Amino acid sequence: MEVLTAQGLSATGIDTVLKRVGVPKGSFYHYFSSKDAFGLEVLERYADYFARKLDRWLLEEDQPPLRRLARFVEDAKAGMAKHDFERGCLVGNLGQEVLTLPDGYRARLEGVLGDWERRLAACLRLAVEAGELPAGADCDELASLFWIGWEGAVLRARLAHDVRPLDVFLAGFLAGARSRDGGA
Amino acid sequence: MEVLTAQGLSATGIDTVLKRVGVPKGSFYHYFSSKDAFGLEVLERYADYFARKLDRWLLEEDQPPLRRLARFVEDAKAGMAKHDFERGCLVGNLGQEVLTLPDGYRARLEGVLGDWERRLAACLRLAVEAGELPAGADCDELASLFWIGWEGAVLRARLAHDVRPLDVFLAGFLAGARSRDGGA
Repeated sequence: MEVLTAQGLSATGIDTVLKRVGVPKGSFYHYFSSKDAFGLEVLERYADYFARKLDRWLLEEDQPPLRRLARFVEDAKAGMAKHDFERGCLVGNLGQEVLTLPDGYRARLEGVLGDWERRLAACLRLAVEAGELPAGADCDELASLFWIGWEGAVLRARLAHDVRPLDVFLAGFLAGARSRDGGA
Repeated sequence: MEVLTAQGLSATGIDTVLKRVGVPKGSFYHYFSSKDAFGLEVLERYADYFARKLDRWLLEEDQPPLRRLARFVEDAKAGMAKHDFERGCLVGNLGQEVLTLPDGYRARLEGVLGDWERRLAACLRLAVEAGELPAGADCDELASLFWIGWEGAVLRARLAHDVRPLDVFLAGFLAGARSRDGGA
């Protein structure tokens, strides 16, 4: 997961991965039929890991809903800086490579993003209930907008070696969400 | 440029590119020292091409400024659909791969995005003058926000095989930009 969040699948040789974890090539092919099959399994693990991470922040009951989202972003900023902006989002990396990946990837990546949208939309609905967002806000659309822009912000933060794109994106997202028409 | 906007540099073999244009390998190495050197030249051509495209839309004098931006987005939607969502943004593709590319790429990609930001910021300042955006809008910050999110929207449109992410992003961007604090 560390290697693939850093450089995606196309640029990664399985030998590099196996060397890093000290596993012989024969063992790899006992469990995985190909690098592509391995990549899909890594994606499943990443989806689980990220869903738990989102729940940790977005279900924090002692924080107002939009503050939970901001705390998720703060955590992501700290994580990116800690790894010197080498690691991005596995979903973004594989999404960028999707044309050269087998067919199954596309649907699975969309599925993972759909899951993130549902988790965030639930948090945004709490923000509406709490009066942090206008009553007419379209929370599903806003959740979709968040993850669309988020992947761009992570990409740019890696390029800039700076957390600022994540801040600019969150501020812009919240300004739109709080505006009268709910960002739609 | 067609191949690299579709699949980036890592997944592209020079043989594929040469076969497509009917150029022998010896000729390639006469002009370029490596695939990476070739990629940087393609990036320069793409930057020129995209700067002209931006000017075509953002300097359209008979259109109100924000309408010019919307027309750029409409053109991008049509272009993506025309190529069956196979082609993305070369800057986004190379940005995602930046960890595995030689050092020169990072600065150059940031430079290209900086150029796009300046062109868009000029258009947004006209929108402020025209009363389409609030007087206090931070046009540099908004232009930065636009390209941050744009790369995410292009990525998602390719993944979804649908122009909707571009629409969702533009609507969200404009809602934030028009809100009182100018998206900042």
